Amino acid sequence: TIRHLFKQIFKASLDLQKIDQQKELLVSRKIKRTDTVIEIKGLTIGGEEKVIIAGPCAVETYEQTRAAAEKLKSLGVRLLRGGAYKPRTSPYDFQGLGEEGLQILRKVADELDMIVVSEIVSPNEMEMAHKYIDMIQIGARNMQNFELLKVAGEANIPIILKRGLAATLEEFLFAAEYVVSHGNSQVILCERGIRTYERATRNTLDISAVPILKNESHLPVLVDVSHSTGRKDIVVPTSKAALAAGADGIMVEHHPNPPVALCDAAQQLNPEEIENLCNQLKPFLR
Amino acid sequence: TIRHLFKQIFKASLDLQKIDQQKELLVSRKIKRTDTVIEIKGLTIGGEEKVIIAGPCAVETYEQTRAAAEKLKSLGVRLLRGGAYKPRTSPYDFQGLGEEGLQILRKVADELDMIVVSEIVSPNEMEMAHKYIDMIQIGARNMQNFELLKVAGEANIPIILKRGLAATLEEFLFAAEYVVSHGNSQVILCERGIRTYERATRNTLDISAVPILKNESHLPVLVDVSHSTGRKDIVVPTSKAALAAGADGIMVEHHPNPPVALCDAAQQLNPEEIENLCNQLKPFLR
Amino acid sequence: TIRHLFKQIFKASLDLQKIDQQKELLVSRKIKRTDTVIEIKGLTIGGEEKVIIAGPCAVETYEQTRAAAEKLKSLGVRLLRGGAYKPRTSPYDFQGLGEEGLQILRKVADELDMIVVSEIVSPNEMEMAHKYIDMIQIGARNMQNFELLKVAGEANIPIILKRGLAATLEEFLFAAEYVVSHGNSQVILCERGIRTYERATRNTLDISAVPILKNESHLPVLVDVSHSTGRKDIVVPTSKAALAAGADGIMVEHHPNPPVALCDAAQQLNPEEIENLCNQLKPFLR
Amino acid sequence: TIRHLFKQIFKASLDLQKIDQQKELLVSRKIKRTDTVIEIKGLTIGGEEKVIIAGPCAVETYEQTRAAAEKLKSLGVRLLRGGAYKPRTSPYDFQGLGEEGLQILRKVADELDMIVVSEIVSPNEMEMAHKYIDMIQIGARNMQNFELLKVAGEANIPIILKRGLAATLEEFLFAAEYVVSHGNSQVILCERGIRTYERATRNTLDISAVPILKNESHLPVLVDVSHSTGRKDIVVPTSKAALAAGADGIMVEHHPNPPVALCDAAQQLNPEEIENLCNQLKPFLR
Repeated sequence: TIRHLFKQIFKASLDLQKIDQQKELLVSRKIKRTDTVIEIKGLTIGGEEKVIIAGPCAVETYEQTRAAAEKLKSLGVRLLRGGAYKPRTSPYDFQGLGEEGLQILRKVADELDMIVVSEIVSPNEMEMAHKYIDMIQIGARNMQNFELLKVAGEANIPIILKRGLAATLEEFLFAAEYVVSHGNSQVILCERGIRTYERATRNTLDISAVPILKNESHLPVLVDVSHSTGRKDIVVPTSKAALAAGADGIMVEHHPNPPVALCDAAQQLNPEEIENLCNQLKPFLR
Repeated sequence: TIRHLFKQIFKASLDLQKIDQQKELLVSRKIKRTDTVIEIKGLTIGGEEKVIIAGPCAVETYEQTRAAAEKLKSLGVRLLRGGAYKPRTSPYDFQGLGEEGLQILRKVADELDMIVVSEIVSPNEMEMAHKYIDMIQIGARNMQNFELLKVAGEANIPIILKRGLAATLEEFLFAAEYVVSHGNSQVILCERGIRTYERATRNTLDISAVPILKNESHLPVLVDVSHSTGRKDIVVPTSKAALAAGADGIMVEHHPNPPVALCDAAQQLNPEEIENLCNQLKPFLR
Repeated sequence: TIRHLFKQIFKASLDLQKIDQQKELLVSRKIKRTDTVIEIKGLTIGGEEKVIIAGPCAVETYEQTRAAAEKLKSLGVRLLRGGAYKPRTSPYDFQGLGEEGLQILRKVADELDMIVVSEIVSPNEMEMAHKYIDMIQIGARNMQNFELLKVAGEANIPIILKRGLAATLEEFLFAAEYVVSHGNSQVILCERGIRTYERATRNTLDISAVPILKNESHLPVLVDVSHSTGRKDIVVPTSKAALAAGADGIMVEHHPNPPVALCDAAQQLNPEEIENLCNQLKPFLR
Repeated sequence: TIRHLFKQIFKASLDLQKIDQQKELLVSRKIKRTDTVIEIKGLTIGGEEKVIIAGPCAVETYEQTRAAAEKLKSLGVRLLRGGAYKPRTSPYDFQGLGEEGLQILRKVADELDMIVVSEIVSPNEMEMAHKYIDMIQIGARNMQNFELLKVAGEANIPIILKRGLAATLEEFLFAAEYVVSHGNSQVILCERGIRTYERATRNTLDISAVPILKNESHLPVLVDVSHSTGRKDIVVPTSKAALAAGADGIMVEHHPNPPVALCDAAQQLNPEEIENLCNQLKPFLR
């Protein structure tokens, strides 16, 4: 029948379109050979220098955030991360301060000339987020929240996209493609460990992801050295490994007083530990 | 300092609250010993009888949907599933017909006295969805899209919650708890395979999940026998296994003409295959 | 050069040989369409009837073994398993009674007209094993102990080959091919759970493996329902699932008094539990 | 009864013994705080300097081995690896030259003052191996071949123990404990990638294993950068990462002419590539 024929033609054209696009994924280095370098307030990500993004798992108070930020600033770290919207496994866990948390982050960052990195978890928060955040993080659990990716693609703000906890690298690049194909080319990929059978670490840091992503894509690549292993005792060697493997920077959790932290108490570095980390990484930051 | 002390008290109270709640997870069988039975248009899920939910991966046209539905109706299947909002790995893959797809589903279901099961992918679609859908599916990729879960929890409609592709059973139950704790107790859990190293199947059907979920929770449990393995050739034995293990029903993809299907062409059953499946499952449906 | 040329010819011939053999794997159903049925002392595996293999994780004493065997015999179970050589993760764990354990098994089996199934772990034990064992088990850890497989291939005794804990089905069939290609066609495949991220069960029972192995190979397929999940509380539903999926039988651990067992105390069924299991499985054993 | 009582006492004493031993695992850094340094023919592993072990996947001919060895020698690599006994998934794949391969390795090593590293796969080969091999490798598939481990423990030769392809770090250390507790303290641990869902690499290099093993054990730790990813294109960054993470050296495959190699053709480095790798690693070898 004609209808059937048309359907097959429609399907064939979808297939063709898919093949065409695969050949030309916008995030692919085949399309754009030069590294994408993201500039933000005088700092670059993906260029010559490597960066450290640090801060508390969750914004709790102005004092806590300010203390963390001061310490980081003194160590030369300008990228301040902090969670205001926390996607938590249990509905009964602390879910973050929301917009109030973002206000605190913004205030502290303005006082100290720092750059705010924070996560949003819903398309509806995107507009509000622009008031407070300089770089928006999309977390592992939302890597395939395609509605959020589309909205991120329509925004004019750098996006840090974290790899899903069981995402293949192919799926990760397709997720980035959702953002870029909707108009926003300022995407930074962040490896944060994958889920495997091994229980010695919270997740398994897939170090090979770094050079593979750098080869296949022109986008900057970071490694979250806190979530990928969940172990403070190995954060120095894994951070060195990440940078030696070619990462453009690392992301790490720092809290002025981890034992009283409202989340991830065991994995946040205290002031002494973050200072030690920054010192040890100097030869690897170029 | 006083501030510090208060913070510790705040943290302790959060911990306490968490412990309290863990003891009393609303989805737990410890709270409610009797099975939750969901009634919908004269049909029950989680009760004596076991159900089959079937239909095309994606709604493509009225004719395709009607053909699938007629076949299913003739086999005694009243629960009609079909995808209108398709979360796809690539932004260039067919993303579904959207609201138009839901209109087709509703029309066909009304004509044949069937029940519409379909997925939504964003909190913003929830209100619109009520017009067309009888049971809302939250897909594997959105199992920890907590904003969507919260909105589902505020709705008055049965929710089929699929296990995330690398979610533990504990995380799965916590995701269900998001819905139930926000007010909607009509939740159905759906095992759909987990991601492992094995490549002979698309995912690994975790059959043990069925009795464990039935033991730990009072909610009905289904198995998606299409996505869990991605192989039509073993759909009969795996469906039998699912029901023998205690599942309250199965979910399966059926298309009147799979080779021209716009998605998952290889895994949808054709009319002959779905008929064979339904016949072979009779002894297992009680 | 000539040398180089010859080497390429050698390599090409190896490749050809490989392709040839892959087309004709001896364990493949393409080579032999009819089911392989293994006969042993009046009992068949892989034929019409389905079997239960049961017994203690480890042989501890004559009394313990005799008590387990009597219970099993009374339930119609003739295949008596018991471990004498135990491959243990730690060198300080109980390693089994060795040959003394096999002597106990043989004595009890002769007294009660039962069939001895037991594991060996080294090629050097094969000859001695023939004196005591009727069916030799090769454990998951030794699935790719190719020296052991070769020796098993030269023996004239049925072999139960367990799937390695992270083996693909393809690797599993190749391991069976080692045995069969060395001359012993009496091989029984045993799914015993694979290693995944999920922690609710000791391993993840890969139920799809059953129909896939049955489709691709003519060899009988069992499921070890004890090791695959490590949970007694779900042994009934998972056993039903295994048989419903087409397994030719199950293997299960039974101990007269599990709390004092020298290994796997938590996963061995007590007399009441094994009786309940056997009763519930009756409709599934045909 | 008395018997029952004795059994419980026996069991309790086994438990006690286990607890005692766990406290005092011989491979643990709690027992021995200083690094174990293995000396062999004037070279040390686990000490100040880091090592490269390289050579062909399989020994094929004298000429091939000599060519590989000469190249390596010229780059300052003295540890020559080559496979004579190859554990292969399929019985129809090239299984290695056996003792003849070891003779070739020995001859080449003696001519060039190099050190032979090669794998054996059966306890029966141990005695013969001493004639040819300086360091014995136990492969991933044999990590829990406890009979082989025990024989290795009775030998007086350094052992390179590779992590099993789905072994936890705990199981890995217990496997090493089998060797050490049988008398041989010269054990070197080798991370070689673990099996996960990710398909971009052959295995997933678990970089965190390096610092964890170094923290928990006093034994030297290597990384096999060929098998862990199976990709030549990322061997430089992953090798840098391994050394930056604290590994005492790397193991890598080199073949004078990879396209005609009899195994792993795609993953062996050619002369140019191995030279590039060695040059790039200089800053990381201290």
